[in-house]
Order: sequence, then C-alpha cells, then structure tokens
Amino acid sequence: MQVERRDFLSKLTLASAALAGAPTLLSNAWATVLPRPAKEKLGVALVGLGYYSTDLLAPALQITEKCYLAGIVTGTPAKAEAWKKKYNIPEKNIYNYQNFDKIADNPDIDIVYVVLPPSMHREYVVRAAKAGKHVFCEKPMAPSVADCEAMISACKSNKVKLAIGYRCQHDPNIQAFMKVAKDQKFGKVKMITSAAGYFDARTDHWKQKKALGGGVMGDMGVYALQGARLATGEEPISVIAQASTTRPEIYKEVEETMMFMLDFPSGARASCQTSYGINMNFLQVNYEKGWLKMEPASAYNGNKGSMSDGTIIDVPIKSQQAKQMDEDCLAIINNTDLIAPGEEGLRDTRVVEAIYKSVATGKSVKI
Amino acid sequence: MQVERRDFLSKLTLASAALAGAPTLLSNAWATVLPRPAKEKLGVALVGLGYYSTDLLAPALQITEKCYLAGIVTGTPAKAEAWKKKYNIPEKNIYNYQNFDKIADNPDIDIVYVVLPPSMHREYVVRAAKAGKHVFCEKPMAPSVADCEAMISACKSNKVKLAIGYRCQHDPNIQAFMKVAKDQKFGKVKMITSAAGYFDARTDHWKQKKALGGGVMGDMGVYALQGARLATGEEPISVIAQASTTRPEIYKEVEETMMFMLDFPSGARASCQTSYGINMNFLQVNYEKGWLKMEPASAYNGNKGSMSDGTIIDVPIKSQQAKQMDEDCLAIINNTDLIAPGEEGLRDTRVVEAIYKSVATGKSVKI
Repeated sequence: MQVERRDFLSKLTLASAALAGAPTLLSNAWATVLPRPAKEKLGVALVGLGYYSTDLLAPALQITEKCYLAGIVTGTPAKAEAWKKKYNIPEKNIYNYQNFDKIADNPDIDIVYVVLPPSMHREYVVRAAKAGKHVFCEKPMAPSVADCEAMISACKSNKVKLAIGYRCQHDPNIQAFMKVAKDQKFGKVKMITSAAGYFDARTDHWKQKKALGGGVMGDMGVYALQGARLATGEEPISVIAQASTTRPEIYKEVEETMMFMLDFPSGARASCQTSYGINMNFLQVNYEKGWLKMEPASAYNGNKGSMSDGTIIDVPIKSQQAKQMDEDCLAIINNTDLIAPGEEGLRDTRVVEAIYKSVATGKSVKI
Repeated sequence: MQVERRDFLSKLTLASAALAGAPTLLSNAWATVLPRPAKEKLGVALVGLGYYSTDLLAPALQITEKCYLAGIVTGTPAKAEAWKKKYNIPEKNIYNYQNFDKIADNPDIDIVYVVLPPSMHREYVVRAAKAGKHVFCEKPMAPSVADCEAMISACKSNKVKLAIGYRCQHDPNIQAFMKVAKDQKFGKVKMITSAAGYFDARTDHWKQKKALGGGVMGDMGVYALQGARLATGEEPISVIAQASTTRPEIYKEVEETMMFMLDFPSGARASCQTSYGINMNFLQVNYEKGWLKMEPASAYNGNKGSMSDGTIIDVPIKSQQAKQMDEDCLAIINNTDLIAPGEEGLRDTRVVEAIYKSVATGKSVKI
C-alpha cells in the first residue's frame, strides 16, 4: 500500500512540476494530496438510481478501466437490495440520504456521482465534497448560477475535483467539430443551427416539475446550447428566447419547448431548439468557406456527420459514459485538467439563466 | 386569327363552366375577356435588365413553350441595343421608363414582367395593369403590405392576372415537401429550421439600399420564410426577430443577417435564418413521426432532400424560371388559378413587416 501511494505521489510531483508555471491551478484543484491510496481503479458511488444510473452509468461502470461501481446511495430499500445483488455491492457501501455523509469514512469510495434531479445537485455535491470525495455531477449542473458557484467553491475548498457529466465532450465525433472551429479549417464560424429534443410520453416526472429543476432547457436544451458553444469555441454574449408548449396539461410548470438565438463575440450567430415534444437531434454549422453537419449530434451513440470538403465524422465509440468516467478518473489520478469541470457547467447555466430571463421579459438579454 | 380567337373563347367558356360554383373567382380575375387574340405563345416584356433578367429570365424565355421574350423596358440605351441584337427584339417592342405606358397599344406584349428593385414594383405593376397587361412581378413583391394591396387591387380592377416570381413553388422538389405537410404523411409538423443565404461581395447594390427596398429579409429571407410556410401549409401567427450585420460599413441602411422564429396555429414552430454574409441553404422539418431534409432548399437548380422513410427528393428540372413562366402563362390562357398569385406575395410581406416591427421593438409581434 505504501509503495502504491509513493508511486502515486511521484506521479503527482511530476504533474506539479509540469504545472510550475501555473501555481494558481494547483491551489484550485487538489493541491494537497488527500490521505488516500492510489488504486488500480477508483471506486464510484452512484447517488440516485433512476433511469440514467440504471441503464447507462451502471452498465458503463462494468467496462470502465479506471473506475468501477463501488457503492450506491438510494432512498429506496428495494432498489438497494436489487443493485446489491446485481452488482455484488458490499452492504457497507450502500447508503441512504440520511447516512450519506458517513461515506467520508469509506475508503472504497473515491468518487460520488450525483445523478439526482437537478434541484438536488447542489446539496449532494456540497455534501460529497465535504466528505472529501471527488464529485461527478450529472447535467444540468444546477438550476442557478448561484448553485453552480457554491458547488465549485465547496469542491475547491475541500480540495476535490468536480466533473460535469458532459458525455458528449468525451465523444471524438463531437471533438471533431470542436476542432474545426479551433483550427479555423473553413474560416470563421458564421451560423449554427442546433436542435436536441425527443418526445417524452411521461406525465409525472421531475422533468415536468419546476421544484425539482425540470424544464427542457436545462436538460436537452444544454445539448443544443453546447452544439453552439462547442462549434464556435466561444461564449455567447446575448440571447433571445421563447418558451412554448403543445401539452399544457402536462407542461404546467415548465416549458415543453424552448427556442433561442445566440450572439457570439466573433459575430457568429446561433439558432437553437429543444423540446420534450419533438424528436430532433442535429447540428449544422456554416463557416466562411464551408459547412459541417451532424445528425445525430448529441445522442448516446452514433453521432456522425460530414463536412463540405468530404470529411466524414463517424468514429465508433463503445460507451460515451465509460469514456467520460475513465477520462475524468485519469484527470483525478494524474491531477490534470478535467475535460468538463464545474466551470463548464457554470458557463451553460449562465446562459440558461439568461434564456429564462429573456422568456420572462420577452426581450434580448445580455450574458 | 378569328378561328384562333374562337378556339380560345371556347376554352375559356369551358373554364368558366368548370368554375360555375365559384363566381367570385371570375369577378376577381380576368372575368371580362380582353380584346386580345389567343396565341401560340404569349409575349413577355421584361422591365429592368439586371442580373436576374440577363442571366436567368432571358435564357429561360428561349426554352419556354407558352411564352417568349417579346419586348424589353430599360432606361439604358446601350442595354436596349445589346438585347435588341442578341434576342432579335423589334424596335417597336423596346420601351424606356418614360414611354412605358404606351405598351398598352402593343399587341405583341401580353405580359409585363417587373424585375426592378423592390421599391419600384408597385409603380410598374400598377402601370402595367393600367396598360391592360398581365403582370409577373419578381419577389420580394414590395416593401410594404400597403404596396402589395395596391398592386393586387390595380390588377383586379384592370382585370389582369398578377403572378409573383416564386420560382420555387413551381419546382417539384419544393412541391414534394409541401405535399408531405398536406397529406400529414408523418403526422403533424412540429419544428422547421430553414436557412437561405449567400455571401454577397457587392458593396453598392440595391440590396444594400433601404430606399430601393433592400435588406436580406425581403430578398433571401423570403425563401427561409417560405420554407416554413410551405412546409407547414400554415400562416404564422407571431414572430420574434433579430437583425445583425458583420459588415456595418456596407450594411449601413439595411440588415445583412436576419434570424426569426415563427409560431404557427397548429403549434408548429420555425426557426429561420437569412444572410448576405453566409453561404447556407437548407430546410429541416421534424414531424410527429419522421423528418424531412432539403439541401439546397431554394436554389435555382438541384434542390433535393430525403425523408425518414427513405424517400429521396431529387427531381431533375431544366429551368425553374421557364417552368414558372409556362405555368403562369397556362393559368392566364385557361383563366385558372395561379400557383403564386399576388395574394401569396402579400402573405409573405405581412410576415416581413412583422419581422421588421419585431426588430424595432425587440419583442414578439402578432401577425
């Protein structure tokens, strides 16, 4: 154990040396090594065992190389029992929302992955950080900028990393169009159209409840927004938005559909749509000297596209979620930058807040 | 000649009989037969010999079956001379803007095709109607709803037809997506994204001058708007729009780019973009149970697309403009409904006016 830890520390020292020119980075993220052994695989505890944990994350954690499903946090004893059996989880690694904070004393758990409804993210991210655990947090990061800032701050002061579950940013097919903007392959980005939506037949889900952080904008809308942000490599400076619903009996508290237009500093513009009532998932980017199309553009699997010069984007990927967790674990192990840290979730939330403000005022809102 | 005319009248009588159930239609359009002989081909006079007349309409008039280039109206003697030679136009069929009204006495000219800057459309459509000539009018029909109404009214009271140069509506590739909406092939239309733009390198053109009816919205924007209107088969009930420019030194008086979001009575929404600074031309329609994509969606040639059920839209077409003029001539000859009459131009102009009002107020505008 000691040897392992020494290895780990020496890796950290190398990482620190590499970062010698950027001392502030070290103070921002895990500068003090926590008294925790290096491991072959980091232990992840999933908090909230809904659809995404059940159907996506738990299966992904069976094929991850840098982490594994070590524990669960659930308020439903029947779920605890089922998961315990299915994934052979030790009793001592199973928590409920009351005894959750005791996870601090459990060396099996290195990372807490918060997969609860968005309104609960802040509380559980802060509690996990206080327990000294690194945190993965599902998107949308939180309903407000204030929440996001509190979450980032708690992780910083507890010297743990905070990664947002932006699986797409780990997908080489999405990275391909990010690179086109960065390299200015077709000159400047001029216009982006992006859409992410699906028909949700459910009628009583947190996605339809305001108090739980529902509404399509934070959920699917963030993919449409990221389509524009990642395709430009810029942050929008203003937005005008409209919310609507075709099923007011279901979407009483939150919007079913959101449409918004973004303004970027370079002059690029974007038109984005998201909906719980429409199956759609695409991205179109028109550059000075070419175009790029993706469809689907933010699916779990099979994101693909083409460019005006004939380039095809179609990299097979086994599991976005596995790749995401492995890459985030490597960033933890090597103390390097996360692909999508809390600050990235904050950037989206800042725009989402402006979008709701635009809906409320009916006017364009500066960001 | 008399025999021909009798034939013509008997055709009209048949057409009138067919319309017996709709007497108002007869009073609205050419109810009184003008004292003009039926012809193998109707004579068209082009008014305004800019790029579109030169490169598109005149060549198309060499292959039309129901009409031919009979005359021209131009203020530039050098152009008159060149066209006269190139197209073998008799001197008596060449007019300038001063003697234009004498065209009333010229039996060679059945149709006046107004291809001037938009601000001049109203004057020349009204003068052509008063001269007793049928009128083709290029898009945008006119800068204001009041103009459009005056043009429609002048044509009605002079018992001549008024067709707008909406070439796309004569293109079977565009008709294909109109039919999908009409047949509800994939259920209701839910979301439309449409874009029409190109990079215009010119710096001193009517398209950049407000007084001449410039601005991208009326010009290219109408294609993006029609993408949405034709794909839904509905008229929008509200719009929110934003104008912008990346070249303020050129686009001082009018917008370079317009983005707008439309609301349709069925609940369908549309997001549309148009620009003189961006090469883009596509349409995406997401229905309840499928999708349709076109790219290009409003080009002169090669509009094509695909649908979620595997249907390919790709009908070869020799010349949209020739098809448009032939079909409009047939409507004149048979006194049947035009595919795109003045009322269709008015519908677009009503939305365009609301779009400018939205830009001015920064708010959504009811239509």
